Amino acid sequence: MKRPPLTPLADSLPASVPFVGPEALERAGGAPFKARLGANESVFGPSPKAIAAMKDAASEVWQYGDPESHDLRHALAAHHGVAHDNVMVGEGIDGLLGYLARLFVGQGTAVVTSAGAYPTFNYHVAGFGGQLHMVPYRDDREDPDALLAKARETGARLIYFANPDNPMGSWHDAVAVQRMIDAVPEDCLLILDEAYIELSPDGTAPALDMSNPNVIRMRTFSKGHGMAGARVGYALGEAENINAFHKIRNHFGMCRISQAGALAALGDQDYLSEIRAKVAASRERIANIARDNGLTPLPSATNFVAVDCGKDGDFARKVLAGLLEQGLFVRMPFVAPQDRAIRISCGTEQDMKLLGDALPKALSAAS
Amino acid sequence: MKRPPLTPLADSLPASVPFVGPEALERAGGAPFKARLGANESVFGPSPKAIAAMKDAASEVWQYGDPESHDLRHALAAHHGVAHDNVMVGEGIDGLLGYLARLFVGQGTAVVTSAGAYPTFNYHVAGFGGQLHMVPYRDDREDPDALLAKARETGARLIYFANPDNPMGSWHDAVAVQRMIDAVPEDCLLILDEAYIELSPDGTAPALDMSNPNVIRMRTFSKGHGMAGARVGYALGEAENINAFHKIRNHFGMCRISQAGALAALGDQDYLSEIRAKVAASRERIANIARDNGLTPLPSATNFVAVDCGKDGDFARKVLAGLLEQGLFVRMPFVAPQDRAIRISCGTEQDMKLLGDALPKALSAAS
Repeated sequence: MKRPPLTPLADSLPASVPFVGPEALERAGGAPFKARLGANESVFGPSPKAIAAMKDAASEVWQYGDPESHDLRHALAAHHGVAHDNVMVGEGIDGLLGYLARLFVGQGTAVVTSAGAYPTFNYHVAGFGGQLHMVPYRDDREDPDALLAKARETGARLIYFANPDNPMGSWHDAVAVQRMIDAVPEDCLLILDEAYIELSPDGTAPALDMSNPNVIRMRTFSKGHGMAGARVGYALGEAENINAFHKIRNHFGMCRISQAGALAALGDQDYLSEIRAKVAASRERIANIARDNGLTPLPSATNFVAVDCGKDGDFARKVLAGLLEQGLFVRMPFVAPQDRAIRISCGTEQDMKLLGDALPKALSAAS
Repeated sequence: MKRPPLTPLADSLPASVPFVGPEALERAGGAPFKARLGANESVFGPSPKAIAAMKDAASEVWQYGDPESHDLRHALAAHHGVAHDNVMVGEGIDGLLGYLARLFVGQGTAVVTSAGAYPTFNYHVAGFGGQLHMVPYRDDREDPDALLAKARETGARLIYFANPDNPMGSWHDAVAVQRMIDAVPEDCLLILDEAYIELSPDGTAPALDMSNPNVIRMRTFSKGHGMAGARVGYALGEAENINAFHKIRNHFGMCRISQAGALAALGDQDYLSEIRAKVAASRERIANIARDNGLTPLPSATNFVAVDCGKDGDFARKVLAGLLEQGLFVRMPFVAPQDRAIRISCGTEQDMKLLGDALPKALSAAS
């Protein structure tokens, strides 16, 4: 049977998903997870004010969301002390990364990232025919010098750099990041993914410079603000780069309820401070559980902790499998030597209890 | 200053929006609209069960939505009597149209639509470098024969056909649509946009045939189900076409609250029946107001009525401006001779009162 042919590029792509979702794992396993600590969601939830705003907005959902996300965009601009045309709101950082790939990447365009860094970025780049060049982590951190060197070598159009990093939780301070920004080739755009920035130590984010066309900063309501399911991310950048999103974005793509929730969440900075404290305490709790089991928690500036299991990837994968079998949803890095670790998201006291009970069993089963 | 260059295609695109949103018009006008009758939203709102489900889901929004939209997809499959791999859930029909353009359209690919039909489809096709070929409406309806002839002539990869049609509200019956489906060239995909199908007379939608790779049906929760702001659309089609979405879609793009709301809305078919009755009554109300003012309401199978103002586009534009000035958000067709009409969405009794008061004034100001 003849059928309408896909474009050659689309035809060449696998029908793949960057991550299998926890619900799919639950369906495969036949039971719901007891603890959901694998996707770096915020178990502490969003601000009660954000929840209230979303509940109110539910009755109004017969109306399309404002395609300009005007109120949210202006509030973000005021919050960050930039102009509103330096802000683009989109369907999560994932959605915005897809738009950036579409804007800057064609067949064979060189793009640089770290081996083992965010797979969804790679998915989008491959989806537009880009050629990915990867550099290794260095001491479990993304390596700015290696990323820049590879970008110069390949004539890359985009560099992806997450600070703090996922999946390791590691980070560079603002001075190091600013040094990297200053060294980006002039025909290249540095995508600085700061999804976890609200949870990082002061002095992690360099000052926002909206005059620089060679860097764009990615932020989200999914992590610190606890609204992963609402799909609200935003980009901060030089106005002409920001304006380019208007050429291709799904203008009416934002959920009206999510817009309302994000606006309320942004207005509740006190709640965000509470979350920072809870996340810090939970990181410490995970670290203690790891140490109690003879493992090494790596320092983290995020809402998760990479726990070095002390052996190779095969061993860590066995530990992970042991936790999954006991009903704990956890993930781990894909690439050696970072895959010697498992990645555990911060959780409630109940989650931590389950982890404390399950980890020794998983370790002894893996040994 | 050198800057990272966009791809040649992206560089060539304008930073445009297919529609200016009502909120932007309100901001420009300095006052909120008294009646929102321009975007074919459902003023009657979603099912109370859907609202309750969304309110419940607001507290759970710290979790990402299921990237497979498993429960909703399976419920839709059961509802329509098809397999779940014949269903793709996405971020509104707009989002799914963008994905289809990306899958099937490259530089210069021929695509056929009607002059004056849905602009967002054209936006997506242009955004991937496609060459749009347009045929005129015939008797205020999209013209299947002309669309097919143009597709054969140009070797088109995609045909866009909305049934019922927006902006005219006109429709073809299932027999005519099936005849069109049967005549689609074998290397061409007919995108049959059935956004308003729940509001159309019985016998408008042809039977679903999921074995045919040359047609894909687009449905939504935005219109009959009253959830435009939630951004939930879906495609029904042959499994290999549906599977192609997985190559490129934003897998974690669905709002978790919206997924929950759509599932509950689908389960409340009684409410949908009530909406059908309310929409029919409101159509009749709009038609009567039009007739009372010496205008001609066109037959409609949707939640809006195109009202023929009896003169040319310039006159209708003046009438529209007069309604906007009086605080009524209304839109109109873009292309002659359909632009002799204004398009009025169904509304509440209060909306209809405002319309009844405002229309005579707008008409006398326009004359």
